[in-house]
Amino acid sequence: MSQSLAYDALVTHHRRIHDLEHLQAVATWDRLTHMPPGGAPARAAAQAALTMLVKQLQAEPVLARHFEAAEQEPLLGDAALNFARMRQARRIEAAIPQALAERRELAVGAAMAAWAQARQDNAWAPFAAAWAPLVVVVRESAARLGDALGLQPMDALLERWEPGLRMARVTPLFAEVQRWLPQLTEQALAAQVRAPLPIEPIGPFPAAAQRRLCEQVMAMLGFDFNAGRLDTTIHPFTGGVPEDVRLATRFDEADFLPALIGTMHETGHARYQQNLPRDWLGQPLAGPHSAALHEGQALIFERQLAPEPAFVQALAPMLRQAFGPQAAFEPDNLMRLLRRIRPGRVRVAADELTYPLHVILRVELEHALVKSEIEVDDVPAWWDERLRRLLSVDPLGPFSQGPLQDPHWVQGMFGYFPAYLLGAMVAAQCFASLRRDLPDLDTRVAAGDCKPVGDWLALRIWQQGARHDLDEMMQQATGESLSDNALRKQLEQRHARSD
Amino acid sequence: MSQSLAYDALVTHHRRIHDLEHLQAVATWDRLTHMPPGGAPARAAAQAALTMLVKQLQAEPVLARHFEAAEQEPLLGDAALNFARMRQARRIEAAIPQALAERRELAVGAAMAAWAQARQDNAWAPFAAAWAPLVVVVRESAARLGDALGLQPMDALLERWEPGLRMARVTPLFAEVQRWLPQLTEQALAAQVRAPLPIEPIGPFPAAAQRRLCEQVMAMLGFDFNAGRLDTTIHPFTGGVPEDVRLATRFDEADFLPALIGTMHETGHARYQQNLPRDWLGQPLAGPHSAALHEGQALIFERQLAPEPAFVQALAPMLRQAFGPQAAFEPDNLMRLLRRIRPGRVRVAADELTYPLHVILRVELEHALVKSEIEVDDVPAWWDERLRRLLSVDPLGPFSQGPLQDPHWVQGMFGYFPAYLLGAMVAAQCFASLRRDLPDLDTRVAAGDCKPVGDWLALRIWQQGARHDLDEMMQQATGESLSDNALRKQLEQRHARSD
Repeated sequence: MSQSLAYDALVTHHRRIHDLEHLQAVATWDRLTHMPPGGAPARAAAQAALTMLVKQLQAEPVLARHFEAAEQEPLLGDAALNFARMRQARRIEAAIPQALAERRELAVGAAMAAWAQARQDNAWAPFAAAWAPLVVVVRESAARLGDALGLQPMDALLERWEPGLRMARVTPLFAEVQRWLPQLTEQALAAQVRAPLPIEPIGPFPAAAQRRLCEQVMAMLGFDFNAGRLDTTIHPFTGGVPEDVRLATRFDEADFLPALIGTMHETGHARYQQNLPRDWLGQPLAGPHSAALHEGQALIFERQLAPEPAFVQALAPMLRQAFGPQAAFEPDNLMRLLRRIRPGRVRVAADELTYPLHVILRVELEHALVKSEIEVDDVPAWWDERLRRLLSVDPLGPFSQGPLQDPHWVQGMFGYFPAYLLGAMVAAQCFASLRRDLPDLDTRVAAGDCKPVGDWLALRIWQQGARHDLDEMMQQATGESLSDNALRKQLEQRHARSD
Repeated sequence: MSQSLAYDALVTHHRRIHDLEHLQAVATWDRLTHMPPGGAPARAAAQAALTMLVKQLQAEPVLARHFEAAEQEPLLGDAALNFARMRQARRIEAAIPQALAERRELAVGAAMAAWAQARQDNAWAPFAAAWAPLVVVVRESAARLGDALGLQPMDALLERWEPGLRMARVTPLFAEVQRWLPQLTEQALAAQVRAPLPIEPIGPFPAAAQRRLCEQVMAMLGFDFNAGRLDTTIHPFTGGVPEDVRLATRFDEADFLPALIGTMHETGHARYQQNLPRDWLGQPLAGPHSAALHEGQALIFERQLAPEPAFVQALAPMLRQAFGPQAAFEPDNLMRLLRRIRPGRVRVAADELTYPLHVILRVELEHALVKSEIEVDDVPAWWDERLRRLLSVDPLGPFSQGPLQDPHWVQGMFGYFPAYLLGAMVAAQCFASLRRDLPDLDTRVAAGDCKPVGDWLALRIWQQGARHDLDEMMQQATGESLSDNALRKQLEQRHARSD
């Protein structure tokens, strides 16, 4: 007879929630790719109904009894770890009372509507008025979560995305990047001025041809089309479930690079999803555990692999095949296009050198907001001052390219931003390690064989699921804790040399 | 204070079920149109999890108490009718014990798998072995349902698709069709031999052009693309929810007619769905109530409107625009193509004259099976004998074009087949009535304006939802109970004249 009846019941419960969330994932993917506009209200009602039902299932008293009883059961190895993850997730959920969760939903709804309007009207004040209640909810949630977990409020928010990571580690790590990055950026810009201008590709690039190219590149990167697909959407995303991963991108017929590079990014997320430990599917242990690790997988393909000489070598003939021959498709030129530095106001359009500073700006700002050091009305002035100081960029421009450019805070996603820069470090550190382990990497990639990259990552990261926190995972995969070293070296190597 | 608290709770319950079934509809549509094959097991698990959950919600004791209490509440008009529909659905559900429902699920799964295999292998015996347990379940369900509703077993099965209709009405109605149809078919075939052969359209017809054409025709028929869309699939269907109706068809590049005419059929189903009473959404009153009425709406577009001179007049320029000019696209020729008689073995490929006999064959067969007059092993011989006698068609051919051609019985859908011939009667009777009411119909349709057809149907049928049973609905819409008169007249008018 089993000695873990209560734990087994919890496993069944999690599997059931996983199954129900599969339907949410399909509905969300459809909403963002295929749904006609008139279907929106019914879809919102349907998804809300399932969300409510799942909340009810989570609140069933029998579940609390299973948790209590499972504490007494003898669990070993992965089962023990899985139970620990279940317990922590429940602790986080329990820290937020139902009334606060509902206030949050309402506040997010109001803030999202105000955000869309304010971006059109280029107006701060009405947005701030709608956003302020959400910031209050976030502060209150952070305090409650902090009390429950014995953490500072900001650390408690971080815990939801990056288990085990604290601001006491993030702050000096990011300060270190801020120490070396501005000078490196200056050098890179100077070198760029001295180098020949890259030849611009000449469009139009038909969407259908771009789509075929993207699918070809996804296949080259090991995406499993038997368990996933590519679609078009307004805002690129990776969705679906590990058994059926849905990527979506948008095609600009004037420029094929955003869709191509964006698809490589999403393919990184997707391959991680497709290769999470299948035996534990539906259990916390099979989940992606760290946002930084997830972003890292995307950035390995987008920022590490894509601008490498070997990769552009493989890409060049695919571009010629897709769009006809062009001088711009020469590997050297492609590399120059992919490595071009263009400081600007918009994070998602930033190059790899200025991108970290965008993230640092946001992390400082959200930390200040959570600690009540600033209020929502202070954000624009604060933002402009930092943009000038950190990025040497003129902040003048519409709010939609300023503090209203990202949706994260409007959705209440405080504590997520560090993942973007930590992810860049993850990517650089993994790629450096992988490169050391695979001496013939360039030869194989240049011939269009990217399999070694996926194989290395699958073994060391993807199939580990949620077994380890970020630092432990990086220690096991690369032999070192996470640091900015590999990122700095890689950026220096790419950008600090005079051409 | 409301006097219908218990009824109000039931309304809320039905709304919730409607919302959850919205997610099933999206998942099913996706499964049939976009899902990669590897996603199938996870999708099946997810949809089964929601089905189970809905079953649990239906079984909650509080619901039984609401039903009891609502009996005592003063309900008027539509509310009273809605409650009656709720009660009848519950009575039908309650008649089938959980264990029998589960046996049915298992039997359907086994039969479906055996069916797919047997179609490949052209083998009857292994299919019969897998199907026999399902037939046992169906007989048992019919008996239990009959006991609960005070009906003969076959009538009880019919009640689920066609409330209020009994075999005592179906049998003489179909016998009447059998009385006049064979002779009419003979006349039509003779006339066809004397008439010039229609000119065959010359392909290929690119799928993209066919799709654009189908969307154009859907728009002309009044399909609301703000609340629905067209996709491609293997087996055409209409799915989704009234707020977001999903049509799917398949394109054969050698012949554009199947997709075009099939899309017109599905558009009839879709417009009905899109125009069901919106104020009652999610309630039984807002549902389509009769399978014959649903098929009828599809057949009004496919079989009544499409082969009309006025419609082919409007269609001809659209075909030239889609595929370039061809002699075959002349209206007279199109009409000959659409009215061509070709007796054959396959129901879905049948013309409007031989189609009813295919349905009659199936209704006789399912009736005999339910009454245990024949057993599954008798089916092939029985089938061949009737095919020869009813349709004068040589039955020789693979089982996939014989008794294994339809999936209905393999899915346990006994009692549905009458809807196809009753639907043909509905379509003819409605169209004749509509034509009398709208003297300028042909002029408007020939000019591409099909709005009057939809307006007439919306008012009299679609927006009635489940208010009336089939005969009452036809009485109200056309002034007469359902009969074969209009169908006979229409077929005679189209086919009995010598050209």
